[in-house]
Amino acid sequence: MTDFDLMRGLHRAASGKIVLLVMDGLGGLPLEPGGPTELEAAHTPNLDRLATEGVLGQAVPIRPGITPGSGPAHLGLFGYDPLTYIVGRGVLEGVGVGIVVRKGEVAARGNFCTVDPEGKITDRRAGRISSGEAIPLVEKLAQVRVPDVEIEVRHVKEYRFAVVMRGPGLQPDIADTDPQRTGVPPLPARPTKPGSQKAAELFNTWIAEARKVIAEHPTANALTLRGFSTDPGLPSFPEVFGVRSACVAVYPMYRGVAELVGMSVLKFEGDMPEDEFAALARGWNDFDFFFVHIKKTDSCGEDGDFAGKSAVIEGVDAALPRLLELGPAVLAVTGDHSTPAKLKTHTWHPVPFLLWAPATVRTDDQKQFGETACAHGGLGTFLATDALPLLLAHAQRLEKFGA
Amino acid sequence: MTDFDLMRGLHRAASGKIVLLVMDGLGGLPLEPGGPTELEAAHTPNLDRLATEGVLGQAVPIRPGITPGSGPAHLGLFGYDPLTYIVGRGVLEGVGVGIVVRKGEVAARGNFCTVDPEGKITDRRAGRISSGEAIPLVEKLAQVRVPDVEIEVRHVKEYRFAVVMRGPGLQPDIADTDPQRTGVPPLPARPTKPGSQKAAELFNTWIAEARKVIAEHPTANALTLRGFSTDPGLPSFPEVFGVRSACVAVYPMYRGVAELVGMSVLKFEGDMPEDEFAALARGWNDFDFFFVHIKKTDSCGEDGDFAGKSAVIEGVDAALPRLLELGPAVLAVTGDHSTPAKLKTHTWHPVPFLLWAPATVRTDDQKQFGETACAHGGLGTFLATDALPLLLAHAQRLEKFGA
Repeated sequence: MTDFDLMRGLHRAASGKIVLLVMDGLGGLPLEPGGPTELEAAHTPNLDRLATEGVLGQAVPIRPGITPGSGPAHLGLFGYDPLTYIVGRGVLEGVGVGIVVRKGEVAARGNFCTVDPEGKITDRRAGRISSGEAIPLVEKLAQVRVPDVEIEVRHVKEYRFAVVMRGPGLQPDIADTDPQRTGVPPLPARPTKPGSQKAAELFNTWIAEARKVIAEHPTANALTLRGFSTDPGLPSFPEVFGVRSACVAVYPMYRGVAELVGMSVLKFEGDMPEDEFAALARGWNDFDFFFVHIKKTDSCGEDGDFAGKSAVIEGVDAALPRLLELGPAVLAVTGDHSTPAKLKTHTWHPVPFLLWAPATVRTDDQKQFGETACAHGGLGTFLATDALPLLLAHAQRLEKFGA
Repeated sequence: MTDFDLMRGLHRAASGKIVLLVMDGLGGLPLEPGGPTELEAAHTPNLDRLATEGVLGQAVPIRPGITPGSGPAHLGLFGYDPLTYIVGRGVLEGVGVGIVVRKGEVAARGNFCTVDPEGKITDRRAGRISSGEAIPLVEKLAQVRVPDVEIEVRHVKEYRFAVVMRGPGLQPDIADTDPQRTGVPPLPARPTKPGSQKAAELFNTWIAEARKVIAEHPTANALTLRGFSTDPGLPSFPEVFGVRSACVAVYPMYRGVAELVGMSVLKFEGDMPEDEFAALARGWNDFDFFFVHIKKTDSCGEDGDFAGKSAVIEGVDAALPRLLELGPAVLAVTGDHSTPAKLKTHTWHPVPFLLWAPATVRTDDQKQFGETACAHGGLGTFLATDALPLLLAHAQRLEKFGA
């Protein structure tokens, strides 16, 4: 994994810009043996040219065989070993819907559940109510007030929501209120360290009030909270790697993870690759490193939409000239993990990685950006946490180590 | 290397079975430059079909350049870093001949040696006496009794034997009695920690009695003991990886290592691949994970029998349909290390690895199971300790890490 002290000691001034273009869930699988993956099926003349001029490889997101969630997968690509830098579930869930969680604020993930007249849980997921049904309930929760603290609640998906509490003297060491089984009531929020007594009591107050406003709902008539956590205080990406860093992303989750490591978030309208590359162009002179995130590859993968995922990749490919005319010194194109349409979920498979850096790259003999070509690429198979030093090196932004 | 806490947190229920088929010492070398290895020379239509449908790679047993013994090599394949999980030589030697060593029992490896009339060692290996000559001597040793403890002695090979002492209050911290040179007498068994005083004294008593029964032998008229050790209390494989696990192996050594990590050992008659696969079939419904061990590839390698090793591989290939008709979700075919017939010994070379998992595998473009194809395989080159997470992932037995 990346050694941050090593990185801090090797900063070197240089003018070349670095772009890390992440197509979420890029890695795929063939639908039948010997067939192409989504990326291989896509017509990508620009990416294939970059593959020819650059070098390929495959990145292992966390460790071989480990399927990452989006948070850990991005931390890995940013050089933070996700097994060392743990971000709590509550913070990640909040970040995922655009809630900023700062040091001293306590975030949790919430689930609606169903309780019987005695208060015992009969369904831990409230019959998996739809988002349409859950959103008005979350709006009711958002109206609940507790003295001395500010509470923000946002809907996530179906029966899930995120909640964050802000105020003085809050600490996040609180056990889950979800008993993980039915036939018993939700647990009270209990501190696991003395300093979290106050936050636990305030959450219990909030839970009691919140349950009143949803008590009449036929299924989502109670709730549980889990993953209490706060901003983990990750080392600063610009400080560790010595680059002024910006994020261009449509979805709050990815902007949130970038903020957690101290990147600046560039605002823009629209949700197409062209819109994102235009935002990149506007910020071009103010930063050294750009993380650009494309979401829809992953969404199509999750939906099992093989052709759709290929089409999203083709859209990115078509928009690439706009990015290239900015003149990056280094462009990496990869994903945070694989989301094969065949399996409709994140997977552990290594992720195609393309590194283009005209001044410094050692090219290999691969001429198409695809999984099989990447498995044969000159970069080999490497941990995602090794990507950042490679990008910095190719931008000549790292000093020699040792005399 | 495998992170056991991570593994424990990711268990996921699934129905697919996993088979890890280990051909001992599978990796080989060409007899002349450009020639085939033993595996490449073998006619293996079934393995080649699996290679075509699956993905290849090469596993590094311990670290690059490190030649493993059988114990560490198997621990690595089971996900236990052999540099972290040390099993004492005495235990491994005992395990290798079918002696079960439990916590609180003390095992040691024994060597016959030759001493002169003054008791000074003249040959540390007793002229490398043959097994035929050593076995009756070991039978004499096995008759020696020491009050309060039970002692088991078994022959290993030539001048080597294994001994284990069982009784109350025994601890294994005892220095080797082999002085590692000639011209001096064997050392007494000396405790290196106070708690091992009792065991050391009892071993000295046994050594004195044992030397009496072999004193008249012309070369093997004394003995030394080394590698005093006990069951290292390895984490339980079924508990770490969340799979009910069974071992199918002909040789005691491999059953022993499997038992050390808590696998169940399936009993069966015969020593052919067909016999082993039949045992696998009988246990099929009772376990999730099966370690199947083929010994004779290694034996042929050690004998320098290139053609014989190829023939053993062909025998496994021919029997494979019997295994495949059981319908495993994941089948890995590999070795624990290389034993090239050319070198007649274990070596450090990476080991061919074939992963077949029709529902989840990302195939590569390799179509033959062999060392060169594996070096180009989609799995790349990886540490053997990474194999287990890969197998579990492909059986969809691991949850996602993080949100």
